[in-house]
Amino acid sequence: MSILVVGSVAIDSVETPFGKGENVLGGSATYFATSASFFTGVNLVAVVGEDFPQEHIDFLTSRNIDLSGLSRESGRTFQWKGRYGYDLNEAHTLDTQLNVFQTFRPRIPSQYADADYLILANIDPDLQLEVLEQVRSPRVTACDTMNFWISSKPEALKKVISRVDFLIINEGEARQLTGETNLVKAARAIQGIGAKNLIIKRGEYGVLFFSGSSIFAAPAYPLESVFDPTGAGDTFAGGFMGYLANTGNLSEEGIRQAIVYGSVMASFTVEDFSLNRLKSLDYGQIEARYRSFKAMTHFDAL
Amino acid sequence: MSILVVGSVAIDSVETPFGKGENVLGGSATYFATSASFFTGVNLVAVVGEDFPQEHIDFLTSRNIDLSGLSRESGRTFQWKGRYGYDLNEAHTLDTQLNVFQTFRPRIPSQYADADYLILANIDPDLQLEVLEQVRSPRVTACDTMNFWISSKPEALKKVISRVDFLIINEGEARQLTGETNLVKAARAIQGIGAKNLIIKRGEYGVLFFSGSSIFAAPAYPLESVFDPTGAGDTFAGGFMGYLANTGNLSEEGIRQAIVYGSVMASFTVEDFSLNRLKSLDYGQIEARYRSFKAMTHFDAL
Repeated sequence: MSILVVGSVAIDSVETPFGKGENVLGGSATYFATSASFFTGVNLVAVVGEDFPQEHIDFLTSRNIDLSGLSRESGRTFQWKGRYGYDLNEAHTLDTQLNVFQTFRPRIPSQYADADYLILANIDPDLQLEVLEQVRSPRVTACDTMNFWISSKPEALKKVISRVDFLIINEGEARQLTGETNLVKAARAIQGIGAKNLIIKRGEYGVLFFSGSSIFAAPAYPLESVFDPTGAGDTFAGGFMGYLANTGNLSEEGIRQAIVYGSVMASFTVEDFSLNRLKSLDYGQIEARYRSFKAMTHFDAL
Repeated sequence: MSILVVGSVAIDSVETPFGKGENVLGGSATYFATSASFFTGVNLVAVVGEDFPQEHIDFLTSRNIDLSGLSRESGRTFQWKGRYGYDLNEAHTLDTQLNVFQTFRPRIPSQYADADYLILANIDPDLQLEVLEQVRSPRVTACDTMNFWISSKPEALKKVISRVDFLIINEGEARQLTGETNLVKAARAIQGIGAKNLIIKRGEYGVLFFSGSSIFAAPAYPLESVFDPTGAGDTFAGGFMGYLANTGNLSEEGIRQAIVYGSVMASFTVEDFSLNRLKSLDYGQIEARYRSFKAMTHFDAL
């Protein structure tokens, strides 16, 4: 089953204590699509400007990502500049230029309207709702968001949350959305808004998954060299949905395994700037790290 | 096999956003001993003042903790006052009065000199070394420490670290001790000092265990109500060593299970002020939560 992803494609400039990436490929949909492409076919709906380099188009195409939904508009591509300190959990935005992304209105090509798997990457929740209207009867839907939409469009966001199958947000956002500092209480409150399944990302500390009264806790893979955390969350979501779409196994077990595949993919992304690590990745390495994950968390008895 | 614990017994006054505990039972050795007492016999070496209430003696005795090594000196008991904000991961010390603890020189009663399991709770590393001299041939030794000793007595502390089997510290301390912000690099550096086995506590995010090239990651149990994190780390260490002493299983598997029992015990302690939750705890509840831990972390496949 292929996945439809709607989100941003960007040009990033990122500084971390370990180096710099200037004018590199970025954007939530880019990370998502590339990560998911290791597991299944991906259809991308996004916008770029006239300046968007052909090499990035070539790369996405080489990953078998269908770009018929990628529109090229006059003007410049969305640009983001950010910096990370030694605490790599928090990005400091230095500059955001929305450019062609400012007037982005996602139009879903007719051949995608029957998509079974749909991910709404971080965009305006009103646009996320418009996309949901355009996709007829998706089997699995997921969305991400950010602090900006939580404070500026809480009502539209809550509508999205109650309509998708998986909400994927980070712990700061979960606290902001609910006003609860305790994460379990925050999760229960978000379930109260209507979230059927909730994945809370905790950066280097891993992920908590809430569904009904059940909780699944997955650690992040402990890495000796983290160069650039940009895109880790989107890469996680891409691996997660990609694996679900590949197996079609929506049982609690299947979802948990998908979460671990998502964590595996995120652990690769942060090992280099931009999508560089994913460019050299192969499926054998993904499986090997999944095995390490299992070994790292196993304890049994009683 | 019984455990020998050397550390502090204190009177705490703690404030959290959820309430207050004034002049309640505290101290690293107290939490450790009480937690370990659910798994095995415990011998306690510590000091209290003339003011130490009989009810606390009665409680420790009711847990079958042998108090022949608890000396009562003229003067007042060690007192600690602290406060936690909504971020319960960090304690703010308001006042410390060492009192009789200031001149504490642990003397190990002769009947304890053959102890098989020894935990050096957080005290001056020079005193930890003195204790190691007095215990003939322990099978398993563990130690804890704190930021104060890392900055004031790094050399003595490194000696302790190279002599014990398990170092149990929190992530901030691991970074401080090594100057490494990356936790895996910090762990490798501590192994370089001579730590055979290293347990890094990450508060609400759980625990990482490093031994040789192997890593074990255990999440913390997600709780809806955390009232007072005081003593969580010592309670963890008590459950960990208590279970090891009970089973004698020092394999990687046995150690991992002990780490989860430690996490289970810590998850109970934070549910109420002081040792109140441990006072009403029974072994069936411990087993039930261990089962929940297994269910919460299970994923398999591949």
